[in-house]
Amino acid sequence: MKANEKRNLIMKEIAEAIFAADSLYIFPHMVADGDSMGSCASFCRLMRRMGKTADIMMEDEIADNLKFLDKGYVTFVDENTVVPQRDLCVALDCSNTDRFPKREKMFFSAGKKTICIDHHKTEFNYADINLIEPSAASNTELLYELYEFMGVEIDKEMAEAIYTGIVTDTGNFQYTNTTKKTHIITAELYDLGIDTKQLNIILFQSVRPQKLMLRNTILNTLEMRCDGRASMAYVTLDMYDACDAKTSESDGINATLRDIQGVELAVFLREKHPNEIKVGFRSKDYVDVAEVCLRLGGGGHRHAAGCTIHDNMEAALEIIRNVIDEVMAEYDAKRA
Amino acid sequence: MKANEKRNLIMKEIAEAIFAADSLYIFPHMVADGDSMGSCASFCRLMRRMGKTADIMMEDEIADNLKFLDKGYVTFVDENTVVPQRDLCVALDCSNTDRFPKREKMFFSAGKKTICIDHHKTEFNYADINLIEPSAASNTELLYELYEFMGVEIDKEMAEAIYTGIVTDTGNFQYTNTTKKTHIITAELYDLGIDTKQLNIILFQSVRPQKLMLRNTILNTLEMRCDGRASMAYVTLDMYDACDAKTSESDGINATLRDIQGVELAVFLREKHPNEIKVGFRSKDYVDVAEVCLRLGGGGHRHAAGCTIHDNMEAALEIIRNVIDEVMAEYDAKRA
Repeated sequence: MKANEKRNLIMKEIAEAIFAADSLYIFPHMVADGDSMGSCASFCRLMRRMGKTADIMMEDEIADNLKFLDKGYVTFVDENTVVPQRDLCVALDCSNTDRFPKREKMFFSAGKKTICIDHHKTEFNYADINLIEPSAASNTELLYELYEFMGVEIDKEMAEAIYTGIVTDTGNFQYTNTTKKTHIITAELYDLGIDTKQLNIILFQSVRPQKLMLRNTILNTLEMRCDGRASMAYVTLDMYDACDAKTSESDGINATLRDIQGVELAVFLREKHPNEIKVGFRSKDYVDVAEVCLRLGGGGHRHAAGCTIHDNMEAALEIIRNVIDEVMAEYDAKRA
Repeated sequence: MKANEKRNLIMKEIAEAIFAADSLYIFPHMVADGDSMGSCASFCRLMRRMGKTADIMMEDEIADNLKFLDKGYVTFVDENTVVPQRDLCVALDCSNTDRFPKREKMFFSAGKKTICIDHHKTEFNYADINLIEPSAASNTELLYELYEFMGVEIDKEMAEAIYTGIVTDTGNFQYTNTTKKTHIITAELYDLGIDTKQLNIILFQSVRPQKLMLRNTILNTLEMRCDGRASMAYVTLDMYDACDAKTSESDGINATLRDIQGVELAVFLREKHPNEIKVGFRSKDYVDVAEVCLRLGGGGHRHAAGCTIHDNMEAALEIIRNVIDEVMAEYDAKRA
């Protein structure tokens, strides 16, 4: 059976389960990003419009710039919350159950049937029906196709949630997951009346001044190594405090370090707790940072990986300096 | 006659002039951006492929991240350069002749016929044939339509130049000039084999460390006013020197200041020469900064405008602080 046929069969099975259901719980992953929240909001909107009882179950807060997606859909729960049984539990953008740890028990017990719809490559087929499509740039792109398959109307609210997932998960169409299909679907969203001006103000033009100052403070620690082919920077708990910034507000620094001209390897060290330093590695082209992090007891992907160092920041910086110099020398030797 | 019919007539006239021509000069605007360079590169490539003699004439350097577009197309000239007569002079992305001051004489004298193709709203129909289409998000989007109209093949090199114009002029599809058509055309570029990974590395992931440090230095001057509804920052000649940065590397700071959460009015002061301060104003939603700048002897658009203050930075900062407080108080009074 061709991949496409198999996918259509799964979509058919999901469509039938949805049409048959009267009530559902919907699960985004923890620290939900634009794609997971956009997926859940578009899905919950559709379900309620179809007359079903549907709610999004969350175990942590909604990011400020994504709160507009919650039109009374979200219920906050923890590992002890008991809820009445419903027909379906649907996890969106969750490649594994460790993406919703405090709700895992609920996911498997509160629904007569479980569904997982995700665009991450994964071997965990943890639900009764699993629609996994790694070629989709965002999970909302995949949902758009499911909605088309189901023949349901996509309204403006759903379209804006789908757009949110696409633009946040593709870095505004810049990441390599973006395809021809991503642009075709986005073009169709324009026909559904999406207000891109307001969406972009909410999503990208609402940076907290504290975040800006934190970024500045971090970039003041920028250190270039190996003739400018490596960059590193760090953040301490004191720096978050001094800027009155949230932990999540140092996200994105790794990309900034990698985007420096000539940089192949970028490393960002983050003090999570005293003597617990999270280290994020990024590469632009040829360095396999997954392999580098494996040596340090961590792991990840070719261009994005990480590890943890249990020591103070000064010691961690010294370790990383040596790792950087070593890795770049190895690649130099290979390429010579 | 409908706008569309009129446009097709102009496209027909341009197509005929191009097919009839054996030789051309192509003109981008000075300080050429991705759209102007992308326009000229795609056009020059097509002309040479069609066997015509074609060159891009420039009066200033090509930005580092756009140099890949010049496959031996560019000739540098000044106001005294004399060149042999050709059949056509074609200006791309130049709404007025002041966009190519040192080449204005050449444009009007070196071609038997002149053509202007632009997507900026303009009343200056300075060429013999003027194709002006403000609804196009980028000039390369408009050229894509012209190429389709002409029935010529768009090859990979042209497609990458067109993509460059689109992503740079729409801020990665984020600005409000982006339309359904922009996404449809981009989708079609994927079929032509564009290497979006390499293009995005070149265009967006090649920030000079000097630029990063300049941005940091500037953001250290951030001042919030009016309960966080206004932001301001400045750069002096000394700061450029200290960072070893280019003047152009403070571009984009205004957008960063505007993108702060809650900010409606953002002002950036740049010391161009001693006692000559360029002031850029941006607004997010309701403040008409064109009107504000008019009062200060400047001008611009509703959401982006500027003026010049002939004084030292300290005096200029004091003037701007007062202007900001006054303007915000006026809008508060209006909205009360």
